[in-house]
Amino acid sequence: MRTRYYNALILAGEDREVREGEMWVKDDKIEAVVFDGRKSEELFDSEYDCGGNLLMPSLKDAHTHTAMTFSRSLADEFELNDWLFKAIFPREAKLTAEHVYWFTLLGFAENIMSGTTACFDMYMFPESVAKAAVEIGIRNVFCGSPNDFGGMDLIEERYLRFNEYDPLVSYKMGFHAEYTTNKDNLQIISDIAHKYEAPVYTHISETKAEVDGCIERYGKTPAVVLDEMGMFDFGGGGFHCVHFTDEDIEIFKKRGLYTVFNACSNLKLSSGIAPVKKYIDRGLKIAIGTDGAGSNNSLDMFREMYLDAVLSNVRSDKDGLIDPFDILKAGYSGGAHCMGLSDSDILAAGKNADFILLDMHHPNMNPRNNIVSNIVYAGSPVNVLMTVCAGKVLYHKGVLTTVDINEVNKMCSRLVEDLI
Amino acid sequence: MRTRYYNALILAGEDREVREGEMWVKDDKIEAVVFDGRKSEELFDSEYDCGGNLLMPSLKDAHTHTAMTFSRSLADEFELNDWLFKAIFPREAKLTAEHVYWFTLLGFAENIMSGTTACFDMYMFPESVAKAAVEIGIRNVFCGSPNDFGGMDLIEERYLRFNEYDPLVSYKMGFHAEYTTNKDNLQIISDIAHKYEAPVYTHISETKAEVDGCIERYGKTPAVVLDEMGMFDFGGGGFHCVHFTDEDIEIFKKRGLYTVFNACSNLKLSSGIAPVKKYIDRGLKIAIGTDGAGSNNSLDMFREMYLDAVLSNVRSDKDGLIDPFDILKAGYSGGAHCMGLSDSDILAAGKNADFILLDMHHPNMNPRNNIVSNIVYAGSPVNVLMTVCAGKVLYHKGVLTTVDINEVNKMCSRLVEDLI
Repeated sequence: MRTRYYNALILAGEDREVREGEMWVKDDKIEAVVFDGRKSEELFDSEYDCGGNLLMPSLKDAHTHTAMTFSRSLADEFELNDWLFKAIFPREAKLTAEHVYWFTLLGFAENIMSGTTACFDMYMFPESVAKAAVEIGIRNVFCGSPNDFGGMDLIEERYLRFNEYDPLVSYKMGFHAEYTTNKDNLQIISDIAHKYEAPVYTHISETKAEVDGCIERYGKTPAVVLDEMGMFDFGGGGFHCVHFTDEDIEIFKKRGLYTVFNACSNLKLSSGIAPVKKYIDRGLKIAIGTDGAGSNNSLDMFREMYLDAVLSNVRSDKDGLIDPFDILKAGYSGGAHCMGLSDSDILAAGKNADFILLDMHHPNMNPRNNIVSNIVYAGSPVNVLMTVCAGKVLYHKGVLTTVDINEVNKMCSRLVEDLI
Repeated sequence: MRTRYYNALILAGEDREVREGEMWVKDDKIEAVVFDGRKSEELFDSEYDCGGNLLMPSLKDAHTHTAMTFSRSLADEFELNDWLFKAIFPREAKLTAEHVYWFTLLGFAENIMSGTTACFDMYMFPESVAKAAVEIGIRNVFCGSPNDFGGMDLIEERYLRFNEYDPLVSYKMGFHAEYTTNKDNLQIISDIAHKYEAPVYTHISETKAEVDGCIERYGKTPAVVLDEMGMFDFGGGGFHCVHFTDEDIEIFKKRGLYTVFNACSNLKLSSGIAPVKKYIDRGLKIAIGTDGAGSNNSLDMFREMYLDAVLSNVRSDKDGLIDPFDILKAGYSGGAHCMGLSDSDILAAGKNADFILLDMHHPNMNPRNNIVSNIVYAGSPVNVLMTVCAGKVLYHKGVLTTVDINEVNKMCSRLVEDLI
């Protein structure tokens, strides 16, 4: 199956350049990105007129808890600790595989409609999540989430099983957080990571209280404690990374770890503002995530990118403005590399056909003084005309093609009642 | 012309309640909002099935410079002072009535597509703005903008002329800012405001440097200086209000002035974070604006509402979370009252038919644990299915009905070249 996407503006993604061109897709891969007007020697099965709109790599949500759509706009009155212990954990105790399947579908539907084709998901009932991902056609990378409350015995089994499950599904080592995982369990995780030479990912330095607690326990910050245990010997990354010391930054730099920003969640839960500019200046690898819908409350990567570009402007220690292209690239490429999807990062021959078409005729994209700035500072899901993952059109002009959203809404509306 | 909007969820807007019902519109007014199933005695000219989606009052952009769409994504590398003096002012010097007409149309198109039906606009070439407003069908309230560089001789003439121009157009007294207007000129403005018993509006305490400068000049903050001159004897309001002292807050309280938040602009220009929660707790009247596209870079009131609900969470002096309904109400009602459009505030018999239809089937509005929270924390222009102003449908399912957006984009693309 060969499809030609023509009459397009193209941000291929290696750099910030936007050029007129066309893209040829064969099955699930990009066959060619064409800027020189050359013609294909073979016939296409279908041709799509992009109408002068923008083809660019799709967005990658590098930290989420997809099924937490169940908790959207629930308990908005709590800060992180109370929100977790009073509102979320009691409800999570009632979740079944069926709940997670439907609420994950709901989350994936929102991801797809806002231009995201891959999620780095940390949650429960992975069978339900994997089933939902394959059915709807999105890439799901699991991030292991064991902690003292469960999951320690499943690390290897899940790692091996879900890395063989389906081309759309993969699995990375991880754990919930230092503050929910004792040192014996952390050592077990580090040992398994060494056995497989695997990168490891975790929530880290999300709140000041978390860092203070770790220092009280061990006299060191979470990044130091974990690094000293060999946790990051094969890379990985941290989610949130709001409250890093210079030493933490150096560890992330030395180990090549990804800092994954979750600005909306950090605002809503009063966790603070990550020093995005400082991390970029120090050369850290960056990616962007939405966190779960319970603490966001949307799964809108455009809003995240916007905030990552402007929010740290109001930190007292800021030293200059952020280049919006750094943020956009983190959104489509940094996230891909962070979660091991290096073939989904940019538009180029041989890469995965994971891309979006953005409406350049919407007033918010005009005039075109700077297309990258327009996308980062003014773009929103309203600009997403089409979302394609592995060559398959998952969304086009308001219609989800692989899921009945009304059925999903109806099921979620019914199932959320079980959790009260 | 009588139209029935049925099969709807309705947030009428007096309180946070959302109920099933229907709304009857006669010409430019709301005839009835019906929750009890009663039938109309007369026939309707047309009936619209809302499909279970949400009717609510439209949003009001209570501080903007609409034509500044010309500067969207231009000079993103500057902070406020450099941005104004190096990038904006030199280009503004080249603007003509034609530029302002087309760039205002572009801005209005974006306003309408994101659910806004009234703009409190402070800019140049008011004839162009008024013409654009009446043509596209949006309400435009001018905010006078004289300062030491011009406009002082036009205050009364414009005030009288544009308050008689068209039902969609009105004019409020105002001036650019204390730091651009000397005391003689400020006194003239105050005197004219007294003559007409008119409220007065201005940029105020947007940056710390502005406040420091005023204290250096007069030994007092801008709010104190202006209030002592009688500027606010008949009410009015301030745009930005980021750096207020307790005394400033008391003046705004005592005079019943509106504080108009512009969170996106304040982030982008590194101006700071307004203490939204503190102002609400002290009982100040609040409204929300986008500021111009040059410093935002969008005109998206959903993003503003979201930020006003969460951003001040990360201020060190915050004392509790913000009720999202306070913010939503500021978005549709506070803004209306701020700019003198008290008949456009809520959905009720006799009020102006200024409303929007929000897509409740989009995944970001599900499940419906709390519809108000969903709108404020997860809503975006992607949810706007329809925008109606003065009974007229200006936007419906992706299509602007009163303007050819491709022509506007084309003209703006050409005209922006003149300004370089």
